[in-house]
Amino acid sequence: MPDHLLYGVAYYYEYLPYDRMEQDFQMMEKAGINTIRIAESTWSTWEPKDGVFDFTYLHRVLEAAARHHLSVIIGTPTYAIPSWLAKKCPDILVETHRGPSRYGARQIFDITHPGFLYHCERIIRRLLEEVRDYDCVIGFQIDNETKHYDTCSPRAQALFREWLKERFPTPQELNQEMGFAYWSNSIADYDDLPDVRGTINASFAGEYSAFQRHLVTEYLLWQRKLVDEYRRPDQFVTHNFDFEWRLYSFGFQPDVDQYEAAEAVTIAGCDIYHKSESHLTGAEIAFGGSITRNLKNDNYLVLETEAQGNFGWLPYPGQLRLQAFAHLASGADGVSYWHWHSIHNSAESYWKGLLSHDFSEGAVYQEACVIGNEMKRLSPKLLHLKKENKVAILAGNRSQTAFKWFPTSQMGERPELDYSDYLRWVCDACYELNLEYDILNDTARDFGRYDVLILPVLYAADESLIQAIDSYVKKGGHVIATFRSCFADSYLKIYPDAQPHGLTACFGVTYDRFTKPENVSLASDTVALPEHTNVSQWMELLSPMGAETLCTYDHPEWGGIPAVTRNHYGEGEAVYLGCYFDKEGLKALFRTLFPDFGLTVPSLSFPVILRTGTNQEGHKIRYYLNFSGTEQTVPVETSGGTELFSETPVAEGQTLTLPAWGVNIIEEQ
Amino acid sequence: MPDHLLYGVAYYYEYLPYDRMEQDFQMMEKAGINTIRIAESTWSTWEPKDGVFDFTYLHRVLEAAARHHLSVIIGTPTYAIPSWLAKKCPDILVETHRGPSRYGARQIFDITHPGFLYHCERIIRRLLEEVRDYDCVIGFQIDNETKHYDTCSPRAQALFREWLKERFPTPQELNQEMGFAYWSNSIADYDDLPDVRGTINASFAGEYSAFQRHLVTEYLLWQRKLVDEYRRPDQFVTHNFDFEWRLYSFGFQPDVDQYEAAEAVTIAGCDIYHKSESHLTGAEIAFGGSITRNLKNDNYLVLETEAQGNFGWLPYPGQLRLQAFAHLASGADGVSYWHWHSIHNSAESYWKGLLSHDFSEGAVYQEACVIGNEMKRLSPKLLHLKKENKVAILAGNRSQTAFKWFPTSQMGERPELDYSDYLRWVCDACYELNLEYDILNDTARDFGRYDVLILPVLYAADESLIQAIDSYVKKGGHVIATFRSCFADSYLKIYPDAQPHGLTACFGVTYDRFTKPENVSLASDTVALPEHTNVSQWMELLSPMGAETLCTYDHPEWGGIPAVTRNHYGEGEAVYLGCYFDKEGLKALFRTLFPDFGLTVPSLSFPVILRTGTNQEGHKIRYYLNFSGTEQTVPVETSGGTELFSETPVAEGQTLTLPAWGVNIIEEQ
Amino acid sequence: MPDHLLYGVAYYYEYLPYDRMEQDFQMMEKAGINTIRIAESTWSTWEPKDGVFDFTYLHRVLEAAARHHLSVIIGTPTYAIPSWLAKKCPDILVETHRGPSRYGARQIFDITHPGFLYHCERIIRRLLEEVRDYDCVIGFQIDNETKHYDTCSPRAQALFREWLKERFPTPQELNQEMGFAYWSNSIADYDDLPDVRGTINASFAGEYSAFQRHLVTEYLLWQRKLVDEYRRPDQFVTHNFDFEWRLYSFGFQPDVDQYEAAEAVTIAGCDIYHKSESHLTGAEIAFGGSITRNLKNDNYLVLETEAQGNFGWLPYPGQLRLQAFAHLASGADGVSYWHWHSIHNSAESYWKGLLSHDFSEGAVYQEACVIGNEMKRLSPKLLHLKKENKVAILAGNRSQTAFKWFPTSQMGERPELDYSDYLRWVCDACYELNLEYDILNDTARDFGRYDVLILPVLYAADESLIQAIDSYVKKGGHVIATFRSCFADSYLKIYPDAQPHGLTACFGVTYDRFTKPENVSLASDTVALPEHTNVSQWMELLSPMGAETLCTYDHPEWGGIPAVTRNHYGEGEAVYLGCYFDKEGLKALFRTLFPDFGLTVPSLSFPVILRTGTNQEGHKIRYYLNFSGTEQTVPVETSGGTELFSETPVAEGQTLTLPAWGVNIIEEQ
Repeated sequence: MPDHLLYGVAYYYEYLPYDRMEQDFQMMEKAGINTIRIAESTWSTWEPKDGVFDFTYLHRVLEAAARHHLSVIIGTPTYAIPSWLAKKCPDILVETHRGPSRYGARQIFDITHPGFLYHCERIIRRLLEEVRDYDCVIGFQIDNETKHYDTCSPRAQALFREWLKERFPTPQELNQEMGFAYWSNSIADYDDLPDVRGTINASFAGEYSAFQRHLVTEYLLWQRKLVDEYRRPDQFVTHNFDFEWRLYSFGFQPDVDQYEAAEAVTIAGCDIYHKSESHLTGAEIAFGGSITRNLKNDNYLVLETEAQGNFGWLPYPGQLRLQAFAHLASGADGVSYWHWHSIHNSAESYWKGLLSHDFSEGAVYQEACVIGNEMKRLSPKLLHLKKENKVAILAGNRSQTAFKWFPTSQMGERPELDYSDYLRWVCDACYELNLEYDILNDTARDFGRYDVLILPVLYAADESLIQAIDSYVKKGGHVIATFRSCFADSYLKIYPDAQPHGLTACFGVTYDRFTKPENVSLASDTVALPEHTNVSQWMELLSPMGAETLCTYDHPEWGGIPAVTRNHYGEGEAVYLGCYFDKEGLKALFRTLFPDFGLTVPSLSFPVILRTGTNQEGHKIRYYLNFSGTEQTVPVETSGGTELFSETPVAEGQTLTLPAWGVNIIEEQ
Repeated sequence: MPDHLLYGVAYYYEYLPYDRMEQDFQMMEKAGINTIRIAESTWSTWEPKDGVFDFTYLHRVLEAAARHHLSVIIGTPTYAIPSWLAKKCPDILVETHRGPSRYGARQIFDITHPGFLYHCERIIRRLLEEVRDYDCVIGFQIDNETKHYDTCSPRAQALFREWLKERFPTPQELNQEMGFAYWSNSIADYDDLPDVRGTINASFAGEYSAFQRHLVTEYLLWQRKLVDEYRRPDQFVTHNFDFEWRLYSFGFQPDVDQYEAAEAVTIAGCDIYHKSESHLTGAEIAFGGSITRNLKNDNYLVLETEAQGNFGWLPYPGQLRLQAFAHLASGADGVSYWHWHSIHNSAESYWKGLLSHDFSEGAVYQEACVIGNEMKRLSPKLLHLKKENKVAILAGNRSQTAFKWFPTSQMGERPELDYSDYLRWVCDACYELNLEYDILNDTARDFGRYDVLILPVLYAADESLIQAIDSYVKKGGHVIATFRSCFADSYLKIYPDAQPHGLTACFGVTYDRFTKPENVSLASDTVALPEHTNVSQWMELLSPMGAETLCTYDHPEWGGIPAVTRNHYGEGEAVYLGCYFDKEGLKALFRTLFPDFGLTVPSLSFPVILRTGTNQEGHKIRYYLNFSGTEQTVPVETSGGTELFSETPVAEGQTLTLPAWGVNIIEEQ
Repeated sequence: MPDHLLYGVAYYYEYLPYDRMEQDFQMMEKAGINTIRIAESTWSTWEPKDGVFDFTYLHRVLEAAARHHLSVIIGTPTYAIPSWLAKKCPDILVETHRGPSRYGARQIFDITHPGFLYHCERIIRRLLEEVRDYDCVIGFQIDNETKHYDTCSPRAQALFREWLKERFPTPQELNQEMGFAYWSNSIADYDDLPDVRGTINASFAGEYSAFQRHLVTEYLLWQRKLVDEYRRPDQFVTHNFDFEWRLYSFGFQPDVDQYEAAEAVTIAGCDIYHKSESHLTGAEIAFGGSITRNLKNDNYLVLETEAQGNFGWLPYPGQLRLQAFAHLASGADGVSYWHWHSIHNSAESYWKGLLSHDFSEGAVYQEACVIGNEMKRLSPKLLHLKKENKVAILAGNRSQTAFKWFPTSQMGERPELDYSDYLRWVCDACYELNLEYDILNDTARDFGRYDVLILPVLYAADESLIQAIDSYVKKGGHVIATFRSCFADSYLKIYPDAQPHGLTACFGVTYDRFTKPENVSLASDTVALPEHTNVSQWMELLSPMGAETLCTYDHPEWGGIPAVTRNHYGEGEAVYLGCYFDKEGLKALFRTLFPDFGLTVPSLSFPVILRTGTNQEGHKIRYYLNFSGTEQTVPVETSGGTELFSETPVAEGQTLTLPAWGVNIIEEQ
């Protein structure tokens, strides 16, 4: 854990068109930048030929960093292999569902390949030996946005067979759980298991996805073990976990079980990229932050986020600063840009850094100077912000995989929305209402510390999770589940009894019919829904078994059928949403429900975002973030404190004026 | 031929998550279900290892079926191969235009592979031996929705070379008919014939498609011969022919010459799936039924149709019943659902059966109970309905293939509409006007029994067909041809003389220019067209040579040029449509023409569908089907009879009230 | 150089469904057609088996042509190989980025393959020997629309390695210029150079594209050398260069360096296809003509253009004639249709010729008769039209390649507009304003004879070009550069200093930020912009360093920032456009600027197109072309002359009446 806020950049000395490191580091110091991350792309630089090493550049950077008071995070350089390695072991290049790969891009190798692992270990050990004597090295990033790269090599598939045998000792057990009789896929001998790439069996394919995710965990743990042999006790180990990519960090990461893989790090890290300019909302900062914070239930590092970012994300004046403090408000202990200078060749030249290609002290750099110096000054107040959210949202990779095979669309049609859209639907409704949330993994079982537990499209839920939910409600918890929750077991085998499986008593409702809504809207006597709340994507025809109907469908044929229900169960309550509908409708529903569940919905809402936590001194910190281009005047919700930027006292009943894209921070007395 | 209406389901004992067959069969009996189809997906169940057989499940099902008075149709289990077979003969997996295949899906093998045929024959013979002693087995389905799976194996291509040599003994003849000189493709030796997959020659590729279709016929005939060695005289042989798939059964099947392949069955069968809920029109039931009825010119079986079907097809109350009787009204002797229970794993879990995943007696099952018991009661009245339609529509696989290569779009652009769209345009106009039609193959030559013969985009027509058309009109027939008809010979070689080839006298018209209409509409003095009848996709600039102009184009440059013409020829008349236009315009044209052609256009039209035929007692049966969510009051067009559901008499001048999605059946005295 | 206007067709005797050559040639004579192009698709006809030759058809055609006074252009038959050659040397079939190819289409071989070249040479020599004694043969077309077919064979890649070594003797130099350190791509040994197909490095990939283009030049020069061994001094050598294809001849050809490859011909040729009917504008005729004219700075041949063309291009009455004279007005010495008769088989049956499939004397043929006879009569007046345009537009293949890798869109998103769109934006604005332009290659350095030099998105510019631009302006030239100009060197390495590189003094402006405009429009006090001039695709935030601001952005955040600037520099002026905006806005800007730059903007504008030049007699020729379906009355801008079609005198102050799609030509006294 760092003892001050890290403000950093990724620095690529080896990418420079000419040597200007001294000038770069001077500019960093001026900007208040205190950390650089280096080395993660440099294998071909450190080891230009097989077994020939050259760390000249490394030492030059480390020595200069030390001189310029820059801390250094060392990335192990293994996410991009040198060309000579691909020539030496051609089958290192990953064989995927789409066939073999060609050398060129990063992340195109088979992480189970022994030759890869051999060379990987050698370069990591050599690098760690080189850096061990530098005090400026504060930690290590193992690999970079690691995935399994869809490895389907014979080697990986042989490992998968062993994985299956552990879980299903006989082919007959496998046949039964996977439903292999379908289309004559059943096997009498494990040797008959076919190449997984041809399968049409969602259970089988889904299990392979789970196996592939586990390969990532194993690989990261293996690198961690290597690093542990060299690192000092004060040095941390992190990894930059990232998110489902939709040209920005949109959703839950499908290819890594991050909650499991986080075992490999001492401090969680992440990469968050998001739209900017008029599209900046802060929602991804909150979403990605919630996941990363919950990986270790602690503060985390934003190891990469955009400076000028992708083409079309040129920050408006104020936005870079707003973003930086929004990360801290979510519990980050540091923010690091990708990257320092814009690149002059290759692929990502238009993913621009703090500096443009001309290295001038441009507008974005100038705003970074403001931020860096504010962060330096406020570090003691803002570091290690502790958050105690009362809303938990459950997410799971297996449910996500299920949506790949069984989307909310007709077979053969491309779904409009996917798993992460539904997850974000719930998260963003909370975000916009300033209901701060945690995102827990579906392996969590103890929800006792939360007032509300939300299950968005939690398709795959095993019996122990179902019992945990039931038990949580019985003991006074409040659960809100959406359509398609608890529908199948972990192997995506649909439960053959009343839905939602094992929870019909808890929710007081069941259903056996669902369809695609067309021209359907939501009606309610009890919820103050917006004028027209459109139902789309999915609707279940609910049959209450004791639950109260909160909303019904409005439609010529399905009209009057319950759509949302609420049930008292044990000491708690359980709400079931049988359909997807407009986010404004969901917010209306939350506004109705949450006060009954013991949670105050703040009067402030998006675009003014309110984030809170407790600092190291035990004081409550309130961030007021204005995600709009319009000045906002907001009431201060505290009995008194100090606005930290201006160092001015703030009293109850007072109002704050937030400029466009502005931020205020109040520390309570 | 069954002696009662079959009401059935596909039943997959081997797919069940737990054994509940007794309960299932009891529920079937209660519902009036009298038939199950089994076994077509079961190869890996019956033969779990190469040469090791286990028919325990089969006997268990057959014994229970007999106990529960269920007839059984046995499917030969050959459309999905076991994994061990693919491991044993890897080149069984089909090599297609897209390259080699992987194991997993059904229908991914090369039907010309001797190893496949060897194992196929062995499992079929073993199965037939097992079932021969069961009285409850009423018939066999050979294979399942068989296609050629685009086999392009060296084996298949060698057979194709022989196919060509039979038709073109010398390469020079082949060069000339195919136009191989184009782009230097001509060959001097059959050994130089290239892999068909690279060709840009539509004639060559089109002939390969015809060859592939013929492989299907040969394969089905081969299975039929095997079945004939075992079956009893009272047992039928059928096959579930299906249709061009556009996420539902939309059009003419491009990959099978069904009229030829039907030789392999004693009773035609088909699979019809269609949109539901507010999109249910019944048009596919009529369309698919017309084709299947004309395969053997007799009654047929609907071997598969949807219960709850694809996601988004949850039937409204009444729709399942309406659909079932609509099939019977088209000449079906039975209706069977795919399938009994919804599947808990694999790929088609959201293609739901009569029962949902929870096996409960849900709403859809309950409606099936009504239908089953009505069908049981009315079977003597409704079985073997004989239809004598007066409109014939000609369709052909070669014309269809032509549209793949020469669509109604610019080269390189994706066409908006394809062959089947134009076919359906004509069929659906007839359907909506309650003009019942037959769909004949382009091999038909005797049209004498029809009042009207329609040729929608009959691109490829050989000389004998052209003569048959000419002769039909001369003798008093009425033909309506659209644009792009009789343009090329069977090898898709465009006729090098005046268009439509060989029929300029018959139609009294010719043309040598055509283009894509933009901002063109249809004008007419003689046809009561809707206000604006848009012309799109294709327009020919017609030059009448004696024909009367019915419609002209409305356009700044092409305005006034004839678009639709009508010609007296011999004793008959010939109408030519030079362009595609709105369906409402086509219906207006039909309303003008048909009375002159001796056919009354009923006053009732869609959404009220009227279907007629003669039952076994020689009585006329009139179905009134309401394909709308609104109650309809309609006049009864008969001098008197009995409404069969209510068993109430109906008199002339009386009206019927059809509820939303309702059906009435009148048997005339 | 021909001594009369060529009016021709491509003639395929070998494609005829029956022998009708005599009739065809009689029809040609009647139409005034004086030239046929033959033989370019005939390899399999002349050499049906390896080493077996048969030129019967060739002699038949040449003898008949001579009898019918038809000149003949002989195409070398090498763009489509016979099947036996692909069987003999399977690796002749080109290996591309998408993998190996299959036989069938044209242009699917590796032009570096020695076996290909061997057989190529043999057939060319044999053909040239056969035709050498025919007087009617006036010239040769070497190959046909030659490209590199994306050859990525090991052979081609080995040649590429040598190409790189010449430019970068050491791997370290290559690493540095390419930026290979990025993603660990650097190499220590040339043997480690990976397969170019996997690369993510735009500099490396871009250089491979340049190498591939050079292969085309080498190949054409090689064929030229062969032809030179046989041809008579009076026989020309040409090639039909073509354009970036977007279902018509849209843009700059990305796969050939035409300015370099033109060394292989004695007279430039081109193929121009364009939309027709209501979409006919003539813009492609001017655009393609400008490029082709500038290849040799001389007159050129239109070797292929459409008769009836693609489906949907059926010419309106008058359009075929308008098109023919528009080509002459751009400096063509001949116009030849692809092709004489429509083809009855294979792939291009719907790319129709002068004759439809029925060979009748249809409307299009009849219009050709008018044109042919007019061209015969006016040939002395219209041949060898010399053009002296004052506007030069610079285009370059490397800049074009850059847009493939760095488009004006986010990474991962499909750009709306590409390089050629921006080039056409400038060209079409000039065209519509009747400002005739030349298109020069980016290797041009002497711009002295032009009043205005325009640089549309000239992304890649080496130092010598930058100096030439600077020097041109200093000496009194006027340059207009758009956004993204002079941003990178020839290797697509972005210049690491102030943008536009090396020209900040010249333009008096710089910038380091750019973004995607959303809801941005252009504002100006000095330019009479249309009401709302939308800015889209790309915007740079300009910082004037002495330049005057002509336009600013209108936007809540970027409002007021300069968008277009103008700078006096030396004796000249330099205008910089920081963004893309509506073409009408660009025309308004040109109307403001051009008079100041010494160029009169004609009062006539599109759809009336005015083209001028000087004929052999030294008289000024003025074409008035009406690209609309509406009659146009236009003032005559001359002190007097003769309208050539009508042979009537025209005086100053008089007006001309141009019928719809009509053309007038005035020869000044």
